[in-house]
Amino acid sequence: MSDSVFMSEITWPQFEEKVKAGAPVFLPIGSTEQHGPHLPLGVDIYLPTGVCERVAKEVGGLVAPTISYGYKSQPRSGGGEVYPGTLGLDAHTLSLVIRDVVHGLGRHGVKRLVLVNGHFENCWPAVEGLDLGLRELRRDGFTGITAMRLEYWDFVKRETLDKLFPDGFPGTELEHASLLETSLMLLLRPDLVDMAKVPSDGPAKFPNYDVTPFPPGLVPPSGVLADARGSTAKKGQWLMDDHVPQIAAAVRKEFGL
Amino acid sequence: MSDSVFMSEITWPQFEEKVKAGAPVFLPIGSTEQHGPHLPLGVDIYLPTGVCERVAKEVGGLVAPTISYGYKSQPRSGGGEVYPGTLGLDAHTLSLVIRDVVHGLGRHGVKRLVLVNGHFENCWPAVEGLDLGLRELRRDGFTGITAMRLEYWDFVKRETLDKLFPDGFPGTELEHASLLETSLMLLLRPDLVDMAKVPSDGPAKFPNYDVTPFPPGLVPPSGVLADARGSTAKKGQWLMDDHVPQIAAAVRKEFGL
Amino acid sequence: MSDSVFMSEITWPQFEEKVKAGAPVFLPIGSTEQHGPHLPLGVDIYLPTGVCERVAKEVGGLVAPTISYGYKSQPRSGGGEVYPGTLGLDAHTLSLVIRDVVHGLGRHGVKRLVLVNGHFENCWPAVEGLDLGLRELRRDGFTGITAMRLEYWDFVKRETLDKLFPDGFPGTELEHASLLETSLMLLLRPDLVDMAKVPSDGPAKFPNYDVTPFPPGLVPPSGVLADARGSTAKKGQWLMDDHVPQIAAAVRKEFGL
Amino acid sequence: MSDSVFMSEITWPQFEEKVKAGAPVFLPIGSTEQHGPHLPLGVDIYLPTGVCERVAKEVGGLVAPTISYGYKSQPRSGGGEVYPGTLGLDAHTLSLVIRDVVHGLGRHGVKRLVLVNGHFENCWPAVEGLDLGLRELRRDGFTGITAMRLEYWDFVKRETLDKLFPDGFPGTELEHASLLETSLMLLLRPDLVDMAKVPSDGPAKFPNYDVTPFPPGLVPPSGVLADARGSTAKKGQWLMDDHVPQIAAAVRKEFGL
Amino acid sequence: MSDSVFMSEITWPQFEEKVKAGAPVFLPIGSTEQHGPHLPLGVDIYLPTGVCERVAKEVGGLVAPTISYGYKSQPRSGGGEVYPGTLGLDAHTLSLVIRDVVHGLGRHGVKRLVLVNGHFENCWPAVEGLDLGLRELRRDGFTGITAMRLEYWDFVKRETLDKLFPDGFPGTELEHASLLETSLMLLLRPDLVDMAKVPSDGPAKFPNYDVTPFPPGLVPPSGVLADARGSTAKKGQWLMDDHVPQIAAAVRKEFGL
Amino acid sequence: MSDSVFMSEITWPQFEEKVKAGAPVFLPIGSTEQHGPHLPLGVDIYLPTGVCERVAKEVGGLVAPTISYGYKSQPRSGGGEVYPGTLGLDAHTLSLVIRDVVHGLGRHGVKRLVLVNGHFENCWPAVEGLDLGLRELRRDGFTGITAMRLEYWDFVKRETLDKLFPDGFPGTELEHASLLETSLMLLLRPDLVDMAKVPSDGPAKFPNYDVTPFPPGLVPPSGVLADARGSTAKKGQWLMDDHVPQIAAAVRKEFGL
Repeated sequence: MSDSVFMSEITWPQFEEKVKAGAPVFLPIGSTEQHGPHLPLGVDIYLPTGVCERVAKEVGGLVAPTISYGYKSQPRSGGGEVYPGTLGLDAHTLSLVIRDVVHGLGRHGVKRLVLVNGHFENCWPAVEGLDLGLRELRRDGFTGITAMRLEYWDFVKRETLDKLFPDGFPGTELEHASLLETSLMLLLRPDLVDMAKVPSDGPAKFPNYDVTPFPPGLVPPSGVLADARGSTAKKGQWLMDDHVPQIAAAVRKEFGL
Repeated sequence: MSDSVFMSEITWPQFEEKVKAGAPVFLPIGSTEQHGPHLPLGVDIYLPTGVCERVAKEVGGLVAPTISYGYKSQPRSGGGEVYPGTLGLDAHTLSLVIRDVVHGLGRHGVKRLVLVNGHFENCWPAVEGLDLGLRELRRDGFTGITAMRLEYWDFVKRETLDKLFPDGFPGTELEHASLLETSLMLLLRPDLVDMAKVPSDGPAKFPNYDVTPFPPGLVPPSGVLADARGSTAKKGQWLMDDHVPQIAAAVRKEFGL
Repeated sequence: MSDSVFMSEITWPQFEEKVKAGAPVFLPIGSTEQHGPHLPLGVDIYLPTGVCERVAKEVGGLVAPTISYGYKSQPRSGGGEVYPGTLGLDAHTLSLVIRDVVHGLGRHGVKRLVLVNGHFENCWPAVEGLDLGLRELRRDGFTGITAMRLEYWDFVKRETLDKLFPDGFPGTELEHASLLETSLMLLLRPDLVDMAKVPSDGPAKFPNYDVTPFPPGLVPPSGVLADARGSTAKKGQWLMDDHVPQIAAAVRKEFGL
Repeated sequence: MSDSVFMSEITWPQFEEKVKAGAPVFLPIGSTEQHGPHLPLGVDIYLPTGVCERVAKEVGGLVAPTISYGYKSQPRSGGGEVYPGTLGLDAHTLSLVIRDVVHGLGRHGVKRLVLVNGHFENCWPAVEGLDLGLRELRRDGFTGITAMRLEYWDFVKRETLDKLFPDGFPGTELEHASLLETSLMLLLRPDLVDMAKVPSDGPAKFPNYDVTPFPPGLVPPSGVLADARGSTAKKGQWLMDDHVPQIAAAVRKEFGL
Repeated sequence: MSDSVFMSEITWPQFEEKVKAGAPVFLPIGSTEQHGPHLPLGVDIYLPTGVCERVAKEVGGLVAPTISYGYKSQPRSGGGEVYPGTLGLDAHTLSLVIRDVVHGLGRHGVKRLVLVNGHFENCWPAVEGLDLGLRELRRDGFTGITAMRLEYWDFVKRETLDKLFPDGFPGTELEHASLLETSLMLLLRPDLVDMAKVPSDGPAKFPNYDVTPFPPGLVPPSGVLADARGSTAKKGQWLMDDHVPQIAAAVRKEFGL
Repeated sequence: MSDSVFMSEITWPQFEEKVKAGAPVFLPIGSTEQHGPHLPLGVDIYLPTGVCERVAKEVGGLVAPTISYGYKSQPRSGGGEVYPGTLGLDAHTLSLVIRDVVHGLGRHGVKRLVLVNGHFENCWPAVEGLDLGLRELRRDGFTGITAMRLEYWDFVKRETLDKLFPDGFPGTELEHASLLETSLMLLLRPDLVDMAKVPSDGPAKFPNYDVTPFPPGLVPPSGVLADARGSTAKKGQWLMDDHVPQIAAAVRKEFGL
């Protein structure tokens, strides 16, 4: 019998026992989205799942099944919905999924909940879904729940970014399919990375506004917004060595663990 | 670089190429639901995913990321939402997810689509989600799409059932966490099965109607509705040896492959 | 002044009195759907209404107005939405109607509620609508409600089916516009049946999956899925003689009447 | 075989033939609502259905199944949702039902559609539902549809009102369960009227605004807002003799019949 | 620092203080809709806002930001959505906006709420939005709220109408962009009225039913449904001298001020 | 007659003429939200409206009525919904409003549309609402529309920020009710600013994640997240001197004006 942190790999009595003991439950929210010619469509599934797995092990938590479809990719942060294989949900759809899962977990007695976002565009539908779920739980009489919501990439030291980007960090939005994600994938799923295919058509130079239809040529054809060259598993490890303890620390602080 | 059948493991150019070549895309629809004390909460995720993987390999298809949360568990077919770890979506939520994914796939040129259900209660929200997705695709001018929708367990020979159930097949609904699912899990993920925990509190004797609140005592406490004793990986193999070629044959027939 | 079981035929003081006395309320859920060239579009309205009327009389209950529009007809169980006069609702629409009616009845103090389905495809939207209605009632502080949900055709003895189908029962789904429904209509509304028009283009041989667009030729052109020949009012009476007492017994049991 | 104007009483080939011949289809929209101690809860179902039946016969039309649940009763026009047996739908729910039915009829080739409202509060959800249905039909490529929407009570001559109300017409809203509706019920369903129970606690004196919670005492306890005394079947006939030919004339004019 | 009645012009501590003191909050509900060639698109924004401002000053209330987009214009009361610049919301959208604003105000402790409608077509979506908002507040445990909902034009003396329309009042619906609205605009925003452009193509002669598509020619081309000639600021003052004290009196009565 | 840029101040023939001439239409999206003890609740209404007015004058555009209610305030960017007078909409509600307004404008022939956001939290519901509106327009056959969406505060020169924040710019999120907004209000509506009430309880030190319930004490009690001291109308002018020409330039570029 498994003693996995993944809910999908444990039985209901195991889940019940953990929840009664106060285990925080992590909900990774991913997406199915283009990540250039060198990374698979599931990057935003693998990375938050991998981060959650490690943090959950640190803090005695559980990881709910990853939501594999996220909000619609935007040109300036993910290349947009035009790339083959990019499958975005409407905001309302995604928020309802999160609402229902949050509601379900709260119904089963989960008091400590952490939504871990792995896809930039998910941020606000996740805010809404969490708010709706907690609202319904209050209406159903479930109280005493504390819920966190975070983007895993925000948990990184300044010095790590300086080390990774000696010429300056291009910013979270542009890091789509670029150095950070590629390095983390090289750490977690090297079998799914083809460094030989890393393109050099970036970095993108985007305007500071949205425009529809998005002008052709602004998104690098590869779908890589900044630059993935120089990615290594070691750099991925540097990142993970920030993400996991920092998130674990935040979780411990907020939940009094 | 991966040549996986899983969309999440390939790049967007690989996806594009496959779709242009007419590859059917399989969408497994699972759930996170109690499956007794001997099976993990993710059974309905693993099984349709495993079936899809094998069929996709047979027919040159792709497998979209599995929808991991399904419709609310019902007492007479899954024990109900009261079991810890069972996380059901509202029907509208699930249908919208399927609508959006179907719409996304159709937008990207997928002409052959197969929804493979792994959770009894998903059947009708899947019917609706598919109908809504296809309706939106028509409104957006995408035509020539053929879509199948099936429950994988319906693809089994009469003689296999007779072999598995010499005393008579109790029916699909009661087979929750019982011989069929346990045997298939022993085949696919034996690490997640604990045969020592197989209970003997079934089979359930349900009335031929729903009633809410569900009378206590009718669902066997373990959550296993029929009987999982005697499950083996070999029996799982018998099933898979029906499921895969029969579904592949149906897919080939409908898509003219 | 009427002492009808039909809510639409009694006054609000009569309704109030009955409900205060604990009368169960039956909600027939029908549809407007093709039923071959010999039966009218309203079969699924008349039959559950007729069953409810008889059961309500047995148990001192009331019958709420029948929901006359149901879920979208499916090719394998009703011929599909393409038949002229078949008017299906979206699942969300139907569930909301049922939610609101259930909510309204509960608000007025109804403690015993029975949803009686007369159209195969309604089953799951009815499950959802009932769940939503009961959820809202809980949020509004209405408790102590017991609700049943059933398909009337499930209340039939094995021996009756054997008598009706000496060559074997083709199954509920195929029984669309066929022997059972035709016999019951001959019992309840013979003026609306034209036995001379009973077709012989069935029975349908359907695959064990859905496919869209549905292959032409699989649904018998008449819309009758099995066979209606040999239908008689007497056979309808046999069925009614099972349906009514069996449902009444279930109702008495669950409601402690 | 029936040659009824009611869709529920004819077969799909009959429906198809009528629609191909250009038959207008009437959709009665009713409600289940208190109508005082002398009238049944179904008044708003029976009256528009009865009007539609007569008009349809005049103009060669069909009558779709009546929508039996309408928008929430308001204190100033129906007494409000507090009366036992009054079962109102949310506006969105009712509009979706009408949208789906309108869409279904248009899909089947109906080019002439008439929504006939029998419950004051339905007016605007019917406006919206019709607009949504026609919008969807346009998006699906169905064109050339003309749709009317009316309240049947607006089709009455000034002199008839003067004859019925020698002391002045109190206005449509107050006529709830009062002289007009009672007289029409005496004409159509005298078995459901108990003139001995007609109350004398009206007429209501309402403010010219809504207020929630509605001040107790403003709605006459009986639920009759004006006065039903003096109602007769003959007066009902006067009304029907206005309603039917006037609506028929309007229908003929707009549809060029 | 402002001591405005407009919420948008005061600070949160000022709002808090007023609400704690029991100040009624007025919510004007307007629209963006054609009002002929002599009045601006914002008439239905300015008028209810102006009425609310004056009533709020009288009774010590506050005015929430006006909802500037209303329900879809109808041909018989506003000319319809075809007029350039007329921007109607779906009924569901408008009801949700009102629901959320009502919910927000109730959450902050507002116990006296007045929805003031300035656009005929808003009436029923406002009824629904208010009902939904109050329902959610009850579910969240906020009680003791009294809410009024009114059309400002209903607060006028019979003699004022007689003075304004010596030849008879054409009725509220036809008064679109006509004498009443033009006179009120001349009082409140004379800079936005061009009396030289007042058309004379009315009054409209409408049928007593809706029809879609609306027959060309029935709506006067100018969009003015009755007649605006003879409008003066003085007449506007007559109206305002009815509206403000009458609404203030109703508010005082219902709220016990 | 007005030649205002505000749609609400012009007539439908004026609107029609401008739109036919290709005028871009600006839609300001605001909110009703606490802005400390020195600024009014309407800051996020006044500022984007003021920016749109100036840009519209520069480029010959129009300004649609400002959406006065925005998405729910978040603790880390606006103090949260707990502050009295903060009235947030659900994301779905706000997106539907924007969808319907965008759809309406497109229906009337607007080909150049600019959504100008004035409330941080509105960004993503605006992305979604715009996407939904454009999708519906496509389905209705309206093509050739270009739409921009922007946050006005993103249009500022680096050197202006350096001049305003010699000690470093705290970032957009923290600038709630702080130097930038206060200075702009001093420029646009000095009558609504009380510099004597500017608090000194900031700046907030927020964690890099959301947590619900938000820990007491983290939001400065005043609701001012950074620091408003030193705000002047002159600084507001510096900002406006960046915002207006930069946005105008972007608009000209994208629309080819």
